[in-house]
Amino acid sequence: MSLDDNSLKMFQFIKRDALGSINIDPLQTGGKLTDAAKAALLEWGDGYSVCDYCGGVLDLIKKPPIEEFVHKALPEFLGTGAARVTNGARESKFAIFHSLAKVADGKNYVVMDSLSHYSSKVAAERAGLEIVFTKKVDKPEYRISPEDFTEAIEAGISAHGKKPLVTQITYPDGSYGNLADVAKIAKISHEYDVPVLLNGAYSVGRMPVNAKELGVDFIVGSGHKSMAASGPVGVMGVTDADSVYAQNLFQKSAYNKVKEVELLGCTSRGAPIMTLMASFPEIVKRTRPENWQKEVEAAQYFIKRLEDTGQFIHYGQKPHQHDLIFLESPGFFNISEKTKKGRFFLYHELKEKKIHGIKTGLTKNFKISTFGVGMENLKYVADAFEDILKKYDEI
Amino acid sequence: MSLDDNSLKMFQFIKRDALGSINIDPLQTGGKLTDAAKAALLEWGDGYSVCDYCGGVLDLIKKPPIEEFVHKALPEFLGTGAARVTNGARESKFAIFHSLAKVADGKNYVVMDSLSHYSSKVAAERAGLEIVFTKKVDKPEYRISPEDFTEAIEAGISAHGKKPLVTQITYPDGSYGNLADVAKIAKISHEYDVPVLLNGAYSVGRMPVNAKELGVDFIVGSGHKSMAASGPVGVMGVTDADSVYAQNLFQKSAYNKVKEVELLGCTSRGAPIMTLMASFPEIVKRTRPENWQKEVEAAQYFIKRLEDTGQFIHYGQKPHQHDLIFLESPGFFNISEKTKKGRFFLYHELKEKKIHGIKTGLTKNFKISTFGVGMENLKYVADAFEDILKKYDEI
Repeated sequence: MSLDDNSLKMFQFIKRDALGSINIDPLQTGGKLTDAAKAALLEWGDGYSVCDYCGGVLDLIKKPPIEEFVHKALPEFLGTGAARVTNGARESKFAIFHSLAKVADGKNYVVMDSLSHYSSKVAAERAGLEIVFTKKVDKPEYRISPEDFTEAIEAGISAHGKKPLVTQITYPDGSYGNLADVAKIAKISHEYDVPVLLNGAYSVGRMPVNAKELGVDFIVGSGHKSMAASGPVGVMGVTDADSVYAQNLFQKSAYNKVKEVELLGCTSRGAPIMTLMASFPEIVKRTRPENWQKEVEAAQYFIKRLEDTGQFIHYGQKPHQHDLIFLESPGFFNISEKTKKGRFFLYHELKEKKIHGIKTGLTKNFKISTFGVGMENLKYVADAFEDILKKYDEI
Repeated sequence: MSLDDNSLKMFQFIKRDALGSINIDPLQTGGKLTDAAKAALLEWGDGYSVCDYCGGVLDLIKKPPIEEFVHKALPEFLGTGAARVTNGARESKFAIFHSLAKVADGKNYVVMDSLSHYSSKVAAERAGLEIVFTKKVDKPEYRISPEDFTEAIEAGISAHGKKPLVTQITYPDGSYGNLADVAKIAKISHEYDVPVLLNGAYSVGRMPVNAKELGVDFIVGSGHKSMAASGPVGVMGVTDADSVYAQNLFQKSAYNKVKEVELLGCTSRGAPIMTLMASFPEIVKRTRPENWQKEVEAAQYFIKRLEDTGQFIHYGQKPHQHDLIFLESPGFFNISEKTKKGRFFLYHELKEKKIHGIKTGLTKNFKISTFGVGMENLKYVADAFEDILKKYDEI
């Protein structure tokens, strides 16, 4: 394209039309900034802002209190001996896989639950690792069981002639919001002397989760997905700070004695870390058991409202224990088959009602999140779904 | 630390006291947000904001026009056949090194100028590459010559028994702001059939730079350092989009046919890319030759003002062609030796005058940047330096 002043205007002052809507997109509900984070964003938005205060090691900056956050608050929150801030959960996973792969001989592999997010697979792939998945799971519950991991590890050993470098479990998975029995999976993995990585992209920052209590060795979380931070930003923890896992992950450069190789020296170096910190008090509060319980109840209320119409089937664990909800909707699908607008009718109906988050064109199967949406808005959304079904004579 | 409400308040509403000052820190002058970027920051600050509009591939989002930006505007601007947005220049370099290393056999290495930034070294190290540096350069000019690369490549071939995977040149280097003869270095490297990577963290977004015209194969830039964007964000370009280099760098996942492995599927997924886009029209404008020439003249004016005091020695190319300026200051150093405040006197004197950017405790040698500071402010800073020297009877 021509880089003239007039053409370039297209990149500026773009409005985000989803802003005025109730957003039930699973990617968005946990990443909405708090007021404190919005203030941090404005104050610390310029390029490399925090580097004004850096003596050479980003996570040791005392003022603003990044050191206190990274080395005290975050490990306490994650239940780990050490923690770091990264550019995202996937970057955390890659750093962990890569640090394990570089000290291992030959071709290696990781065992993962079959509901793993694509970014886990790509992170392993980039680190040169093959993947052995647990067996495919089926409707209606799509349940991953601890025994699936025994099976997968055994299959991996048969195929590769050695144990996996690490076991990864997605908690919850990103499709059904199922919470697997991590403690038991960790125990199984440890019986093979294999460390366990918990992908908490949809748990860390939403619900109580503690690496030590669950018995996992690594934990990763997503700042933009679940910690009310401006992305890209993630977190990463190692349960035992003195372990060989921690030593490899946080290994210093041969060229610069203070810079960590897997973090490329520095990671989140501006607004993302400041917004993550600014939202952290609220994150601590919202993940307390009594507050998370309210979110679970809200999710269960929403599922029940939809199921009561007879036009929605909820897949996943029951009673449901997470805000991520996967639905099949025969009613919406029927409408899409007979209306002139076809499969786009739902997007347009919801847009009119200022509800955002179901991907354009989807009607039969979709996932949504109720996190932080609030009972009043959830009632409104459930009413809206009913109204749409009634409008087209489905109920 | 205890995660109680009261303790956690320390992470919120933190003021950035450098904000009201004239900032001459090389890390900061090119990353200051434009007004358009500030508006984008507020509009698109929430977590994963742009993902509301994503059909599965971040850089193919049509509205906001990310596809137009990444696949048309950016390649045109960089002079490359293909480009991507990344989490930073160092992440770009790692992706390039890693993509080259994964298809090469055995132990490999990269040839780098001896003034390379630590992040280049750490990126190579993380990719498992050894480094052969060009010879150490000396004062006053610290000049890297094309012949240094011939020497280093030959030394690499002698030591490793094979040619390097890639040659990297820092343009300009981050200490002296020297601009090496890249075209000639690229030619030399190509004679050995070795591709060339230009680290433009301090050029892309500040001055005219075009990969194709310079004859390099890869180019990387920093959004937060030099493109007026909220970090972490960087850019990466490959000159020949059909080359095997591009194929390896942009290789798709075996697990997900639309996701690129070296980018872990998605990179900059929120405010950073939106601020980068919002500032881009201003970036195009400020890098036009006539505007960059004014910056060079401002830098030369500033150097002359300081040299005229007899208390500053400027190191680096002369006449200087970049806003990065390395200075030795016998005057400030003398003061630090005799004043009670010692080496912290300069920081305090400058703070009082609302000038920020020389690292606390430095007096003898330091680097600054004049980029975008403006003639009026530069006169003020030069006057302030003189006033401080006079106050302590150095001139």
